[in-house]
Amino acid sequence: MGLKAKQLAQCTVDFDKDGKQSGYFNLPLSVHDDAWGVIRIPIAVIKNGSGPTVILEGGNHGDEYEGPIALGELIRDLDPGKVAGRLIFIPAINLPAVLQARRTSPIDDLNMNRTFPGDANGTSTQQISAFVNDALFPLGDAFLDLHSGGSSLDLMPSAVIEPVADPVQHAKNVAAVTAFDAPLVVVIDNRGDHRTATASAARAGLTVVGTEMAGGGTVSLDALDICRRGVRNVLSHLGVLPPEMATPPRHEQRLFELPGSDAFVLADDDGVFEPFHRNGTMVSRGQPAGRIHFLSHPDRKPAELAYAADGILYGRRQPGRVRPGNCCLVVASPYGGSLK
Amino acid sequence: MGLKAKQLAQCTVDFDKDGKQSGYFNLPLSVHDDAWGVIRIPIAVIKNGSGPTVILEGGNHGDEYEGPIALGELIRDLDPGKVAGRLIFIPAINLPAVLQARRTSPIDDLNMNRTFPGDANGTSTQQISAFVNDALFPLGDAFLDLHSGGSSLDLMPSAVIEPVADPVQHAKNVAAVTAFDAPLVVVIDNRGDHRTATASAARAGLTVVGTEMAGGGTVSLDALDICRRGVRNVLSHLGVLPPEMATPPRHEQRLFELPGSDAFVLADDDGVFEPFHRNGTMVSRGQPAGRIHFLSHPDRKPAELAYAADGILYGRRQPGRVRPGNCCLVVASPYGGSLK
Amino acid sequence: MGLKAKQLAQCTVDFDKDGKQSGYFNLPLSVHDDAWGVIRIPIAVIKNGSGPTVILEGGNHGDEYEGPIALGELIRDLDPGKVAGRLIFIPAINLPAVLQARRTSPIDDLNMNRTFPGDANGTSTQQISAFVNDALFPLGDAFLDLHSGGSSLDLMPSAVIEPVADPVQHAKNVAAVTAFDAPLVVVIDNRGDHRTATASAARAGLTVVGTEMAGGGTVSLDALDICRRGVRNVLSHLGVLPPEMATPPRHEQRLFELPGSDAFVLADDDGVFEPFHRNGTMVSRGQPAGRIHFLSHPDRKPAELAYAADGILYGRRQPGRVRPGNCCLVVASPYGGSLK
Amino acid sequence: MGLKAKQLAQCTVDFDKDGKQSGYFNLPLSVHDDAWGVIRIPIAVIKNGSGPTVILEGGNHGDEYEGPIALGELIRDLDPGKVAGRLIFIPAINLPAVLQARRTSPIDDLNMNRTFPGDANGTSTQQISAFVNDALFPLGDAFLDLHSGGSSLDLMPSAVIEPVADPVQHAKNVAAVTAFDAPLVVVIDNRGDHRTATASAARAGLTVVGTEMAGGGTVSLDALDICRRGVRNVLSHLGVLPPEMATPPRHEQRLFELPGSDAFVLADDDGVFEPFHRNGTMVSRGQPAGRIHFLSHPDRKPAELAYAADGILYGRRQPGRVRPGNCCLVVASPYGGSLK
Amino acid sequence: MGLKAKQLAQCTVDFDKDGKQSGYFNLPLSVHDDAWGVIRIPIAVIKNGSGPTVILEGGNHGDEYEGPIALGELIRDLDPGKVAGRLIFIPAINLPAVLQARRTSPIDDLNMNRTFPGDANGTSTQQISAFVNDALFPLGDAFLDLHSGGSSLDLMPSAVIEPVADPVQHAKNVAAVTAFDAPLVVVIDNRGDHRTATASAARAGLTVVGTEMAGGGTVSLDALDICRRGVRNVLSHLGVLPPEMATPPRHEQRLFELPGSDAFVLADDDGVFEPFHRNGTMVSRGQPAGRIHFLSHPDRKPAELAYAADGILYGRRQPGRVRPGNCCLVVASPYGGSLK
Amino acid sequence: MGLKAKQLAQCTVDFDKDGKQSGYFNLPLSVHDDAWGVIRIPIAVIKNGSGPTVILEGGNHGDEYEGPIALGELIRDLDPGKVAGRLIFIPAINLPAVLQARRTSPIDDLNMNRTFPGDANGTSTQQISAFVNDALFPLGDAFLDLHSGGSSLDLMPSAVIEPVADPVQHAKNVAAVTAFDAPLVVVIDNRGDHRTATASAARAGLTVVGTEMAGGGTVSLDALDICRRGVRNVLSHLGVLPPEMATPPRHEQRLFELPGSDAFVLADDDGVFEPFHRNGTMVSRGQPAGRIHFLSHPDRKPAELAYAADGILYGRRQPGRVRPGNCCLVVASPYGGSLK
Repeated sequence: MGLKAKQLAQCTVDFDKDGKQSGYFNLPLSVHDDAWGVIRIPIAVIKNGSGPTVILEGGNHGDEYEGPIALGELIRDLDPGKVAGRLIFIPAINLPAVLQARRTSPIDDLNMNRTFPGDANGTSTQQISAFVNDALFPLGDAFLDLHSGGSSLDLMPSAVIEPVADPVQHAKNVAAVTAFDAPLVVVIDNRGDHRTATASAARAGLTVVGTEMAGGGTVSLDALDICRRGVRNVLSHLGVLPPEMATPPRHEQRLFELPGSDAFVLADDDGVFEPFHRNGTMVSRGQPAGRIHFLSHPDRKPAELAYAADGILYGRRQPGRVRPGNCCLVVASPYGGSLK
Repeated sequence: MGLKAKQLAQCTVDFDKDGKQSGYFNLPLSVHDDAWGVIRIPIAVIKNGSGPTVILEGGNHGDEYEGPIALGELIRDLDPGKVAGRLIFIPAINLPAVLQARRTSPIDDLNMNRTFPGDANGTSTQQISAFVNDALFPLGDAFLDLHSGGSSLDLMPSAVIEPVADPVQHAKNVAAVTAFDAPLVVVIDNRGDHRTATASAARAGLTVVGTEMAGGGTVSLDALDICRRGVRNVLSHLGVLPPEMATPPRHEQRLFELPGSDAFVLADDDGVFEPFHRNGTMVSRGQPAGRIHFLSHPDRKPAELAYAADGILYGRRQPGRVRPGNCCLVVASPYGGSLK
Repeated sequence: MGLKAKQLAQCTVDFDKDGKQSGYFNLPLSVHDDAWGVIRIPIAVIKNGSGPTVILEGGNHGDEYEGPIALGELIRDLDPGKVAGRLIFIPAINLPAVLQARRTSPIDDLNMNRTFPGDANGTSTQQISAFVNDALFPLGDAFLDLHSGGSSLDLMPSAVIEPVADPVQHAKNVAAVTAFDAPLVVVIDNRGDHRTATASAARAGLTVVGTEMAGGGTVSLDALDICRRGVRNVLSHLGVLPPEMATPPRHEQRLFELPGSDAFVLADDDGVFEPFHRNGTMVSRGQPAGRIHFLSHPDRKPAELAYAADGILYGRRQPGRVRPGNCCLVVASPYGGSLK
Repeated sequence: MGLKAKQLAQCTVDFDKDGKQSGYFNLPLSVHDDAWGVIRIPIAVIKNGSGPTVILEGGNHGDEYEGPIALGELIRDLDPGKVAGRLIFIPAINLPAVLQARRTSPIDDLNMNRTFPGDANGTSTQQISAFVNDALFPLGDAFLDLHSGGSSLDLMPSAVIEPVADPVQHAKNVAAVTAFDAPLVVVIDNRGDHRTATASAARAGLTVVGTEMAGGGTVSLDALDICRRGVRNVLSHLGVLPPEMATPPRHEQRLFELPGSDAFVLADDDGVFEPFHRNGTMVSRGQPAGRIHFLSHPDRKPAELAYAADGILYGRRQPGRVRPGNCCLVVASPYGGSLK
Repeated sequence: MGLKAKQLAQCTVDFDKDGKQSGYFNLPLSVHDDAWGVIRIPIAVIKNGSGPTVILEGGNHGDEYEGPIALGELIRDLDPGKVAGRLIFIPAINLPAVLQARRTSPIDDLNMNRTFPGDANGTSTQQISAFVNDALFPLGDAFLDLHSGGSSLDLMPSAVIEPVADPVQHAKNVAAVTAFDAPLVVVIDNRGDHRTATASAARAGLTVVGTEMAGGGTVSLDALDICRRGVRNVLSHLGVLPPEMATPPRHEQRLFELPGSDAFVLADDDGVFEPFHRNGTMVSRGQPAGRIHFLSHPDRKPAELAYAADGILYGRRQPGRVRPGNCCLVVASPYGGSLK
Repeated sequence: MGLKAKQLAQCTVDFDKDGKQSGYFNLPLSVHDDAWGVIRIPIAVIKNGSGPTVILEGGNHGDEYEGPIALGELIRDLDPGKVAGRLIFIPAINLPAVLQARRTSPIDDLNMNRTFPGDANGTSTQQISAFVNDALFPLGDAFLDLHSGGSSLDLMPSAVIEPVADPVQHAKNVAAVTAFDAPLVVVIDNRGDHRTATASAARAGLTVVGTEMAGGGTVSLDALDICRRGVRNVLSHLGVLPPEMATPPRHEQRLFELPGSDAFVLADDDGVFEPFHRNGTMVSRGQPAGRIHFLSHPDRKPAELAYAADGILYGRRQPGRVRPGNCCLVVASPYGGSLK
């Protein structure tokens, strides 16, 4: 078609100005109920002196809350004088999903974290991703993408390493992720899917830190505390905040990884899932993991499921109701890769 | 319209037959996709010798699982020879809601627990309630209605007393409920609403035991264990199961009640709720209880909420997203009423 | 609440005027998209000289077509001079359902044939039923309610007898129904449900004729032919049309009845139903009737179903997809009742 | 079923206290997403000294705005010292509809103004109506129900007389309505439907004032100005506000009424409606009123519609798209009844 | 994937035949309810002698009516003998949206005016755009795209200039647009979005005329009159109709343009918007423009909005209900560009 | 974007292993209700010795059942020892559609048979198509795609030839299709659309066999019998099953083709369609084919439709309700092409 896709979003903050600004990037969306309106996505910038630029993203999925809350607090409370460099906050990046408390956008039903690098001429979610990828990533040195388990998963609070091929970038990522000081560190490759925000940021050369903070669609007191501290720890590690804003390490950093498709205990029946263990339990391949009850046929024997990997029970499905293919449990195995 | 409403449900079990039967009551439902079909609701009877009749209900709300699972296990595993009397199981009474994992029925959008005593000529949920009320309650001496918190609430696992005016019935209820041996006992009057299953059973003169077993739309390992034991404890207390099927008491029975509208901390804003305390914390009126964050406007100060009663933090809202009127927290105060 | 429900419908035809009139009864419906509009339901009257009044209803369910088509042809083509008495046509009585080709009304999700005698202050469908019951039935001597199987059922074209207690009325009904000259005559009591149009008309003392004309949501060439002739045959039998407008009998009148809940072969599994016989086959209790295939688990053995009654295979489910409780097959047994 | 329906709403204002209070009545609503929450409907009371009690309602339909805005301004701005008696404000009574900008409630799909006198054990809208009818009307001497045309109608701004049988009450209503000083006064009997708020208030003996303020789902600058002044004029007329808060009459009071079903020009085709005249034009029975265009078949001649009454063109349909039964135009005829 | 997208639409008119033809282009759409059916979009051709080809489009958005009505009248009434050249009418191009009275297509939820140049292998709307772009634009010399404000906007009736880089084409566009003789002429660049029909036609080298004719989802008597005359004026200007079919100019041609993002007054709150001025008022940057009322919290002070540009109030939002990002008002500033 | 789309599906069967395997290919789908789950699509492999690889697909549309049932039976019943080569079964390829009994996928609303060759980074249906195209077609020598008419069409049971340009491939296809031994053989080019599974398989060089087995969304006893035998006949013809598993030919092979757009009798009105002939009738161009009744306006004369081609009435629309553009009837004309 030859025509270059044009960035349509209009931004009310100036990335080059010192101090604290809170504004929006307004993405035009011409729909039945609002022909000439916009999606108005909050963005904030705190800039001071020289130093790296860190992009902090929350709300990539709209039902994950610890990150957006922690970022909002920083936006309101952080003294710009403490900053050495620039912080760009997009705490509710997938605003349509945030407003509906959904993982996916109600506008185009897309999972934003499967739309990168985006498309400036695509649907709304693709346009938002394109804005992040094309307009923000080029400004950044590091990228924090703060996820939680969402409505369907309850995960152990953890910091997440995006795997990259380049050993130097990998070492930087490992260092930044462990600086977060979460109870667990997990390498997650999203089954090799390269359409995530962190994969896209990594391709753009940024240092990347991910998280999974509890979940169940709720705000976890524990995870919120871990997240508040973790963000400051990372920013301090990156030199954008002073060392005294970090907290002393609380957790021994154990590294795990998801062992491919064996990580997942999938339902093969339609019923209600009862797990046999709590998150954090050490489990082994072949061990009974839970069972599916048939509530509409109480005389039928429940179907039993088993683990397919050795490791730690990293997460479980929140809703009791399952259908074939649903992820019931997730096991993380000790990380076998290099740390440098 | 002097025509008497006619019971349309057809039942495949014989309530007068000894032994174990598992069947259905089939409620005709003539809809677009099935003109002459039925809603087929599981029902089981275990009868042996003489003794009281106990009706055990699960799935009144379709997203509450500990009760239905525990009842299904009894249906499958209980040796009829152990029974002295009759057990009538309706473990997924609101089947349309159970199949969709919803509190309310997808057929008529009704909350079954606001439809008693039902209407045999009404909508599907009203017809189910009428079947329970008109066909089952007259057969029963006691009624167990096993609830959990559901998708929207995470409650402390507890046994629940339905308040009644008659002191003899009240004493029976208190005795049966405390026999359940839950960590907490709470008197709940549902704001005086008389349209619940337990209120209807109480009016019919049955001894009534309620529960609230965790929630969040999930299966709780702890609550499931409490529920499994509790049901057997109550049946043993009622004399339908032998004493050895009960477990020794584990919990000191502390009694609480919901102190009217002050029990509820309600949202008055549109945002994401962060609670300040865990369930089980002792709190006092006026104390800060949590706050509502405005994710679409991160520069706005969160709105703070306070408790309106002294007592124990009995439950919290599961979804982080709140709108005005949503129940964020529930406080139970020490019970001031008589126990006999 | 002592206020008497008021009939709100406004009718544009004059029931006392000779000749042919085609108009509407307009039922006010104040909804978001039309605050002061109406549901405009077609009604026609052909009146001439003296004689009985016959009410002809089609479209009680919105996806049953042979009746409405045959009635429309009469409205357009019948010479009023041929009539001795009065014909009142309501060929698309459940107009909101007819427009959407649905069994049930899209406005209140009600099955009109479960709303009689209606409620003039109720929902739209209840108001329509009340109009038929309160305004039309008092004018009538006989009532034809022309049904087909609808989207979910494919039935043998048949005339239907509404069972009544009074032997005189019963004999009149039998005579009128057999005059229809369908390939099959079936007594159907709708599981004893008294909320149907025919049950309501019978209570009002009218002679009642029902039909079931094929189905599957389609227009059957055979059934349409049977229906066109049948309506004229009945009107001729009732003396409103001259004898020469009837056709000579084509079918030996075999009478059947639905043998209670044993008539229905119900699904107990979630899958795709394959019947073993065609409609019209003589079958016997216990004989294999069909099976349910599990397309998502092709290695699972299909579940087999059996007939629960002796008789003729009267109908089958049209959609292949079934869920527990769906009516897969219907068997009609030879009628054991009196014909006079 | 002899149980008396119980009022479940809990109210945070004290009707007997002097001064200005702004609060809520909280109606419990137990739904999937909020098991123990409420619908929180704003209510305000301004009380001072002795004098009549006037109930001011807005938002009975959720897409009519002039009334709710004018009432909100009074709540915020009115000095209680100016009041002689009591004002009870329910400016967004049908809150669920207001939040969705719908005529009808999204919870039960009911038009609140067809649910009076309500049902304290019914659906949410029926419970709200019951609260107004059972808890508020007994406190009141007069009732203002401020409507606009809503999303589907664009009406001439007008004050509305609820017809009553008692001549004394009628004279009071006429006097109060004309005091409003709208450009037009119309007697509207809602086709005799007695399920409206104003009909219910009239039955309870209150003096009743209605309005229709423009519409089209928008806020009209003209109508808002008329409404702001009109409310004060009526309150002044009733003696609750001092005479100086009224404005000098601007409009000659012409009285009209809706002439039964002839008032309405109804669509009989599916297309797009083009009116031939503006609101306020004097028209006569039989005169061409507009036509319906068939956009999907541009070669088809449009269908022409005619007026069925003489009078003033009182209103038109806002959406161009029409289907059979839609109200395209409304004509008001000169009022023929008594004014005293 | 090297396969060339194939045009699937089948057209029943012959573009090369003289005289008047009214037909369809049938676009295959294989959906659940109609596996082998089509979307049947009306198209008409009036051809006579030699002269330019003008393509006249209406219904690009399905809730904008003046254009489609005016084009339908031309199709029915225009004597082919008056034509010098060829007129191709597509008066309801986005037929699925027209039938539902929606801006966007109910089939794929796309705004057709953001899908150009289309995709012959894409979704339905993309296929329609591809047909217009690939099959029609190559036949045309000029393109009229007749829009109105739609359901969400009420705009001043105006003719619209599509900005193009080439000065010759620009001069032609200006001349044709001013020939329309609307009360206002506005240059609108759709925020630089090149996915509109007019932008695509301009890229194809056609002379382009746009309009915005009132809106609010209704048929405006004034705008319809302007549109009827305007279309004939332009066709006369282009030489396809004789000069006497044009009307003498009525309006002084004032040129405006939308001043970038400052043109739009956007909501930043959730409530009901009250504007302070009527369309056509001259306003200035910083001046209060309106306010947002909080109907659910009547004691909260409304939020005030201000204009961001000097100019004429060109349009306002029709629905009172607003959410953050909604376009409340639009200001057009005097055009600063060249006219030739 | 340079990044190669990655195949994300994970497959549990080994295509190179001898014997019978039944498993899944699990396609990750990250949605609100299941962040880390999969669509689990059944796949089976039966491999033995050397010989061609045949891919057998059912469920491309989710409401077509004869193929999936016949394939499931083969998976369960076929003795691997009978096989010479490899059979790859994907009997419910569009599993999301199969579970909902829809032609199109409920996840992305796409018709899978308009998505080939698919997109490994696209929506779910596009990913499934890409798996079939990219992972399976390269393994295959022949491809059977077993369709029926679906919910909207009732077709004569027939085997279908995919037209290809290469005469050698065409001859192979004709031979394989006629080996199926259906009552009718039809060449169908899907209006030239190259996005079907069979077109894609043909481009990949496979021998291709299609079917259309009755329809109406039901399981046809006749068609199921034809399909069961036909699949074995083709496999035998291809040499993968022994000759004795084929049945002797029952049908004379008459070849037909769809004669372009003239094949389809399309509705041009909104009403209920009555056909004049049964499937299988020989008809001719211009002959009356049926009519559309206007049930809401019974006094309006029905609109008559005529055939546009000579040939056999190949199929009819199942639902009576039609709207403009719906395919009412399909005519197949004698095949004029070469057979070799």
